Amino acid sequence: MPSSEMLHVFQPTVEVPELNEWLALLSSRGADSSLMWLGATPVIVTTETATIPAPPRLARPVVTVPSGDGVRLGRRELRPEGTVVSIGPAKIGDGSVAIFAGPCAVESSEQMEDVARAVAGRGVVGLRGGAFKPRTSPYSFQGLKWSGLEMLEEVRLKTGLPILTEVVDTRHVASVAEVADALQIGARNMQNFELLREVGAAGRPVVLKRGFGCTVDEVLGAAEYILATGNDQVILCERGIRTFEQATRFTLDISAVALFKQRSHLPVMVDPSHSTGLPKLVEPVALAAVAAGADALLVDVHTQPEKALCDGAQALRPSGFRELVGRLEMLALGLGRNVSVVVDVDVRDAPVAQSA
Amino acid sequence: MPSSEMLHVFQPTVEVPELNEWLALLSSRGADSSLMWLGATPVIVTTETATIPAPPRLARPVVTVPSGDGVRLGRRELRPEGTVVSIGPAKIGDGSVAIFAGPCAVESSEQMEDVARAVAGRGVVGLRGGAFKPRTSPYSFQGLKWSGLEMLEEVRLKTGLPILTEVVDTRHVASVAEVADALQIGARNMQNFELLREVGAAGRPVVLKRGFGCTVDEVLGAAEYILATGNDQVILCERGIRTFEQATRFTLDISAVALFKQRSHLPVMVDPSHSTGLPKLVEPVALAAVAAGADALLVDVHTQPEKALCDGAQALRPSGFRELVGRLEMLALGLGRNVSVVVDVDVRDAPVAQSA
Amino acid sequence: MPSSEMLHVFQPTVEVPELNEWLALLSSRGADSSLMWLGATPVIVTTETATIPAPPRLARPVVTVPSGDGVRLGRRELRPEGTVVSIGPAKIGDGSVAIFAGPCAVESSEQMEDVARAVAGRGVVGLRGGAFKPRTSPYSFQGLKWSGLEMLEEVRLKTGLPILTEVVDTRHVASVAEVADALQIGARNMQNFELLREVGAAGRPVVLKRGFGCTVDEVLGAAEYILATGNDQVILCERGIRTFEQATRFTLDISAVALFKQRSHLPVMVDPSHSTGLPKLVEPVALAAVAAGADALLVDVHTQPEKALCDGAQALRPSGFRELVGRLEMLALGLGRNVSVVVDVDVRDAPVAQSA
Amino acid sequence: MPSSEMLHVFQPTVEVPELNEWLALLSSRGADSSLMWLGATPVIVTTETATIPAPPRLARPVVTVPSGDGVRLGRRELRPEGTVVSIGPAKIGDGSVAIFAGPCAVESSEQMEDVARAVAGRGVVGLRGGAFKPRTSPYSFQGLKWSGLEMLEEVRLKTGLPILTEVVDTRHVASVAEVADALQIGARNMQNFELLREVGAAGRPVVLKRGFGCTVDEVLGAAEYILATGNDQVILCERGIRTFEQATRFTLDISAVALFKQRSHLPVMVDPSHSTGLPKLVEPVALAAVAAGADALLVDVHTQPEKALCDGAQALRPSGFRELVGRLEMLALGLGRNVSVVVDVDVRDAPVAQSA
Repeated sequence: MPSSEMLHVFQPTVEVPELNEWLALLSSRGADSSLMWLGATPVIVTTETATIPAPPRLARPVVTVPSGDGVRLGRRELRPEGTVVSIGPAKIGDGSVAIFAGPCAVESSEQMEDVARAVAGRGVVGLRGGAFKPRTSPYSFQGLKWSGLEMLEEVRLKTGLPILTEVVDTRHVASVAEVADALQIGARNMQNFELLREVGAAGRPVVLKRGFGCTVDEVLGAAEYILATGNDQVILCERGIRTFEQATRFTLDISAVALFKQRSHLPVMVDPSHSTGLPKLVEPVALAAVAAGADALLVDVHTQPEKALCDGAQALRPSGFRELVGRLEMLALGLGRNVSVVVDVDVRDAPVAQSA
Repeated sequence: MPSSEMLHVFQPTVEVPELNEWLALLSSRGADSSLMWLGATPVIVTTETATIPAPPRLARPVVTVPSGDGVRLGRRELRPEGTVVSIGPAKIGDGSVAIFAGPCAVESSEQMEDVARAVAGRGVVGLRGGAFKPRTSPYSFQGLKWSGLEMLEEVRLKTGLPILTEVVDTRHVASVAEVADALQIGARNMQNFELLREVGAAGRPVVLKRGFGCTVDEVLGAAEYILATGNDQVILCERGIRTFEQATRFTLDISAVALFKQRSHLPVMVDPSHSTGLPKLVEPVALAAVAAGADALLVDVHTQPEKALCDGAQALRPSGFRELVGRLEMLALGLGRNVSVVVDVDVRDAPVAQSA
Repeated sequence: MPSSEMLHVFQPTVEVPELNEWLALLSSRGADSSLMWLGATPVIVTTETATIPAPPRLARPVVTVPSGDGVRLGRRELRPEGTVVSIGPAKIGDGSVAIFAGPCAVESSEQMEDVARAVAGRGVVGLRGGAFKPRTSPYSFQGLKWSGLEMLEEVRLKTGLPILTEVVDTRHVASVAEVADALQIGARNMQNFELLREVGAAGRPVVLKRGFGCTVDEVLGAAEYILATGNDQVILCERGIRTFEQATRFTLDISAVALFKQRSHLPVMVDPSHSTGLPKLVEPVALAAVAAGADALLVDVHTQPEKALCDGAQALRPSGFRELVGRLEMLALGLGRNVSVVVDVDVRDAPVAQSA
Repeated sequence: MPSSEMLHVFQPTVEVPELNEWLALLSSRGADSSLMWLGATPVIVTTETATIPAPPRLARPVVTVPSGDGVRLGRRELRPEGTVVSIGPAKIGDGSVAIFAGPCAVESSEQMEDVARAVAGRGVVGLRGGAFKPRTSPYSFQGLKWSGLEMLEEVRLKTGLPILTEVVDTRHVASVAEVADALQIGARNMQNFELLREVGAAGRPVVLKRGFGCTVDEVLGAAEYILATGNDQVILCERGIRTFEQATRFTLDISAVALFKQRSHLPVMVDPSHSTGLPKLVEPVALAAVAAGADALLVDVHTQPEKALCDGAQALRPSGFRELVGRLEMLALGLGRNVSVVVDVDVRDAPVAQSA
């Protein structure tokens, strides 16, 4: 990429012929320029760094900023008010605190329904659950795959909760996108750039988990692969990095939460479960994440953590989850925010699981 | 240390002869035992792990727990209600949020007084400032040393604010302890065990900063060196660890804040300034620290950061500091806590510095 | 995977019906068992940990070891003499030191030919060069892709040097495997498990680069994904991990080289160029790697590093490369080894590039 | 320190009055200047960066280089031929490979003598052994302290082997320096700057171990504290850094070995025992260290590792040590070097310990 380039952001109402005039104008001055889209917002990227004497009839850019570090569409300056991502009826990034909860892996229809009923209407906006599980060893449980996906679809029909699930192969994207309300890119695939491009093009909201060996700059670069497809429905998820400290599974980088908010307009999610690996740390770390500015939380909840096929050790029980939500509601008050709930979740006939 | 040993905690009112009887009893059973003091609280450490049939007239322990990992007196179980550390009139660990602020290094009497007046009465309980500065290069500013200490004494007399300052050599401890209300062990000296012993014996409260290459377990081990001298006035300070992430100066380990609170009864301080190295991150990280359970904050404040002799780049201006305190007060409400102030600070004639 | 299982290694000459008898025998005892292949060597994995009273006519296993840590086929005990990987005429793992050299990215036919002629016959066994380049930003040079692959094919035809090149998408594997003599899995894709499976099934030798945030155990786990497809032609490549030290691009983990050799039978390659990022460190680190037991080196060489489109800063010039080979030859003598050359490389009409 | 300054290195034969003339000349031009000593070599540091029109009768500097990064006397350019450090009769940095061996901690006179006899005359130039042991917990074995020091003195008298031992407190330096041939600064005290100054002033050779959380730049800065006292007998010791990788105790930074040699004129030692924590890795890592350019090795050897009071798990037995020396001798041949031996070690009556 050129070491020096400018970004001109136009109103979404500016029409393409007018943008093409701008491109022609820049081209006539010898500049390399192109039209990109931050969702519905046109952005012209150009190597021309001087002010351009354009005819008065042409619409002016509303924001003009230099690009840099390989990040264009994700820069905070392009959308200072922040991006709101819609996952089903839920809004992430609107100032509220949005909680996604569920088990690490889909294990059975019963398990998913139990968890969904235990969390629905109690402060969650979506259900998480992995059908495809990337595992260190090929001999570990790899997820229920396509049948797990069917179970997710089923539980969504029953509860109305939007589904967030991981996709691991470019060849699966279209099929997973048919079922999932939002697609998760796991930490191990954060720099699987072909997958990022494919997921961006699928048009679904994307939760991009930070690679545990990747920097803040690299997260923003990875997000840019998705944004460059025209899909601006991206959530950055801090889930801890690898450090020498082994008292927790990973080291949650709380400063990164604030940096993501300051450098990018994308909403930020935090995963206190996978980062700490310890249920007793989920609450304090979740509170800290929200205090640092996180828009959303991703919390492992299982009705029987001791029987979980994957990462059960770190899951909260439903009772612990409800305590967490109570604490978050109080904290949100102190921050002038509130905890989101999905209003149309169907939990009329949902007795709370007795196991909690 | 033995791999298996028990700790018996007695009421502070139990007299030494009675404790000696216990020791004799344990000795008669072939156990290695010793009497330690967690402040005024007697603790008997013994290799006897079975229940001891003691005569009824002997006072029973109020808590009996296994030791382990080289930590005895610092274990949470020994004092479940937590330790309150008194620094001048301030109480750290009583549920309130206590803020220490000031410049990284003492530069002049005027500078210290300016900063002190800018922060006194506005949410701080103590003034920080280094007279002895450990620096990577011998050719960098090393602090004003003894004259810096005199300036700290002077500013305390003028403002009534307690002073927290670093000590770097076993040979300095007695002299520094005469001036300082609390002694700081810097990150680079966290495992300078001779210094820890000497500082413990000086009888002043100690702020123990985590070494940037040290684990949570090692912090607890270092604290134990101080506690073992009979001094229980120890505050653990999380100030970031070294990781591959270079977007911030260090990576603040927010999970460690919660772990310290859960494993130890000692109050926990967080330094959002040195850990991030970026003024714009001080507020979100400070809020996160308090949400995670921190009892105290250590904040770099300078009236003229651009002229600071040491680490100015990360200091807040007084105006930024006051905004931070405002946000902290709101957050504390949501957590059912409050921000401490030192009530007898003399700021009657203290006009706020105009530079802010 | 079961927490306890045994591996029985048989002679490659043992026929499948006989192995099936073993499986039936184990099944009759209630054990879960399966037949796997370490290349041509049959391995029975079973949950039966007791010695099995088999009929004398059945061939006995030559090695029986417990499995563990999610690693089966990669364990050193299964092939104590080590695996030799053949890439074109080159043998990796036969005790010699095998050097692969070339530019980070394929830039043009001329560039590839220049480099190839500069290194051919002077101690290399293969040519490296990336046609598909995973880059942090979508706006950086992404490689010449399919046309780069054509250039690699061309230079192989001209020089006879085997080609090692990276593959980044499951959908590309078959096509890349038609051209490449060996497939490289880049650090960012080390835990792209779908890609590992696909690459394993393609039947080409694989160079598996360690993810910069991944542990030794995770590298062995990733190799297992490839081995489990029946492909035993896998080389583990240490290329540095992310640490707080920024004087080098990554921190080469020299102990991991020895650990890989001790725990696994697979040959080990080291990349001194990408790990250090500094040409002046390539020689000492390459010598260290070989002294620690590395079977192969992967060295960035460019005839005009200052004009490289990707990572030029770390490339050796041909003259520096030849000095390195000279030093390696002397070192190898001291270790009782030698530096491999590909004997049938056609460099009759290959004048050394004058730029060196 | 000033951001821009020059270093002028003079011949050791240049007399002080002549150097004072230079200082006066620089002062007359308004420059801040001072005279420092790299051992016997005068170095003038000055803020004057222009060439100075000095009278022809004044001796010229033999080297003139810019300073920077807080490092002056340690810069390679000041002594391109490298510094040779003398520890007893041993020379470190003269191109040979010098091995120091011994137990982690002094445990008894018998133990020290056993180890000394097992290694003396078999490739070592000095004996290591800690009398003062910094330990994570105050309840762990802290070394035999002063009586351990007496045992070290005793074993030196009996065997003639020079003694390398750690010093941990500024108040101990003079006493330890009376016994030890070389003083070790442990990793935990690398940035205990008061200790560095005191040790420098003691006039003994110093082995400066890298802090496990410290950068290459910080090691060079720490060395500068010692050099600035006029003591140029400093050895830099790489002993591994803390990283996420837990397969080894620390991650030996092999690139740092080469960087130290390139940036500094000081000899470099490597500790393969403490860095890996695994006896089976000591040999490959030691070989790698020497291949990367290390001048010396520090190897844990114990006649009964299983009974060691401290870090026994990582010690080689004498038999393993002798194998290592044999491999090192072969490797050194390939590098055109040789393994040093102390010629006047008195081992006439030293039967090799039978335990090996």
